[in-house]
Amino acid sequence: MHIRIFVTGGTFDKEYNELTGELFFKDSHLNEMLKLGRSRVPVEIRTLMMIDSLQMTEADRDMIARNCEQVNESRIVITHGTDTMVDTAKVLAQRITDKTIVLTGAMIPYKFGSSDGLFNLGSALAFVQTLPAGVYVVMNGRCFIWNNVSKNKQTGEFEELK
Amino acid sequence: MHIRIFVTGGTFDKEYNELTGELFFKDSHLNEMLKLGRSRVPVEIRTLMMIDSLQMTEADRDMIARNCEQVNESRIVITHGTDTMVDTAKVLAQRITDKTIVLTGAMIPYKFGSSDGLFNLGSALAFVQTLPAGVYVVMNGRCFIWNNVSKNKQTGEFEELK
Amino acid sequence: MHIRIFVTGGTFDKEYNELTGELFFKDSHLNEMLKLGRSRVPVEIRTLMMIDSLQMTEADRDMIARNCEQVNESRIVITHGTDTMVDTAKVLAQRITDKTIVLTGAMIPYKFGSSDGLFNLGSALAFVQTLPAGVYVVMNGRCFIWNNVSKNKQTGEFEELK
Amino acid sequence: MHIRIFVTGGTFDKEYNELTGELFFKDSHLNEMLKLGRSRVPVEIRTLMMIDSLQMTEADRDMIARNCEQVNESRIVITHGTDTMVDTAKVLAQRITDKTIVLTGAMIPYKFGSSDGLFNLGSALAFVQTLPAGVYVVMNGRCFIWNNVSKNKQTGEFEELK
Repeated sequence: MHIRIFVTGGTFDKEYNELTGELFFKDSHLNEMLKLGRSRVPVEIRTLMMIDSLQMTEADRDMIARNCEQVNESRIVITHGTDTMVDTAKVLAQRITDKTIVLTGAMIPYKFGSSDGLFNLGSALAFVQTLPAGVYVVMNGRCFIWNNVSKNKQTGEFEELK
Repeated sequence: MHIRIFVTGGTFDKEYNELTGELFFKDSHLNEMLKLGRSRVPVEIRTLMMIDSLQMTEADRDMIARNCEQVNESRIVITHGTDTMVDTAKVLAQRITDKTIVLTGAMIPYKFGSSDGLFNLGSALAFVQTLPAGVYVVMNGRCFIWNNVSKNKQTGEFEELK
Repeated sequence: MHIRIFVTGGTFDKEYNELTGELFFKDSHLNEMLKLGRSRVPVEIRTLMMIDSLQMTEADRDMIARNCEQVNESRIVITHGTDTMVDTAKVLAQRITDKTIVLTGAMIPYKFGSSDGLFNLGSALAFVQTLPAGVYVVMNGRCFIWNNVSKNKQTGEFEELK
Repeated sequence: MHIRIFVTGGTFDKEYNELTGELFFKDSHLNEMLKLGRSRVPVEIRTLMMIDSLQMTEADRDMIARNCEQVNESRIVITHGTDTMVDTAKVLAQRITDKTIVLTGAMIPYKFGSSDGLFNLGSALAFVQTLPAGVYVVMNGRCFIWNNVSKNKQTGEFEELK
């Protein structure tokens, strides 16, 4: 059972440009992270885009959804910026009902040493292997169904809707 | 739903003694790791012992089993040295059938910066939330039932029995 | 022989705000870095400001110069943003001739794990102990006299004037 | 002015063998450390041996001394285990009087993330550029002449003789 991983960018993959002092995207760190975690989960990784999720358009979300529909794998992890992760989850849930799709991300870039990314990746890969078809957000070690989750902008944590 | 975490030591929690150049145990890094991962999974942590799993005796395993039996939580993660993780899983499986117990560990100490521990902890916490009652080993991003797993001493990876 | 360390901010001490995704200043990491380096050099640390050196005004530079003049120590290290480090060095050189003053900084924040800051701090503390009175910039493991140095904006490295 | 760096091993370059749980030597991390520190000091690196300094023989020390004598460079940094660094310094001081030789090391392996090695390397490279001919030990941000230094085995720090 292969897992498909789609990379879309987000804080996860941001790096620090030491000449400008700004954050930017270069390459995904997914392979490096899976190696660090000594993962032996069979995965196929494809980078769909490398953007901040605040800049993600409906066309981008449509492209992500089409990729989820078209790949052979029925279990998919999507790395995604946290700010609009729930929006993308909603789009996916309306179009795909026969696959297990887990969106995850990070609050701190992996390259900054103190990232939550490796923990989240471990969680996401585990949840995607065991959950039934559906669209989920995995953050903070927890799993949320797409229509019962929001990001608390004060704490940066994900929580159920009230 | 609280998760119980039992700490038993293992590579996970080893530190480097800069005066003697040897590895040793001081305190568990579980709380620090959960904080780094921004975990919001409700957990109760108890340190049962801090030993290398090659030195774990039958009395130690009996003590771990008794703790698993007696706690209220029905979902339990045990951090454990990898060398005899499968042996402990076997003891637990023979005595406890109504709880979900996940054993995990690390190949590199958390304090050494390049550890697989955070990834494994993320996986273990995810699997323990979703799997039915049983005893499991979670390593390399994968989940194994206690009686179908061994550690490959050449690669350091866990795999199914042939 | 005590060394005085003045903290003025710069990339050295920047942190990542995980809620806004922006870099900001909180506390100086100097004490933590000296501890990591197991430094036994007697130092007195004072934070004068915590700013990006692009925002440093003439009033700020005057304040730094006055502090250098007034402290008892005759050997001073100043942590400083790299963009205008040379400008501050010039102001100091025009006012202070009887002390050894070393300015240093970093291209990557210390908190990001892959910083040059610890290396630069080690260099700066060493140079300040051995050089005669004068104002110097210490970056890239090298020591430059204040009036024969500039930052190459393409490479991010410091070099002698042509 | 090129600096010669001789690598002899020591804690500096130790790594963790995840299969055996023991520390061992593979390759030197000097190039990686100089790159991290963005060093632009012109250096030539040669690995003479990769051993724990407790296992260093008189033949080893003789070999180090011969290399110091024969290289063209008059400024030399030697990375060395801390336990017998002072012994090697003594051998070198008896044979070489016309070069500046700095011995340095680390209490924690560079690969363990929390090493003092990068700080010490920055200090050593700075001191070797400014000090007159002689043999020195550079640790804890400080510089000691070879015949006025010992390692305090209780604290792991270097200090002057009483």
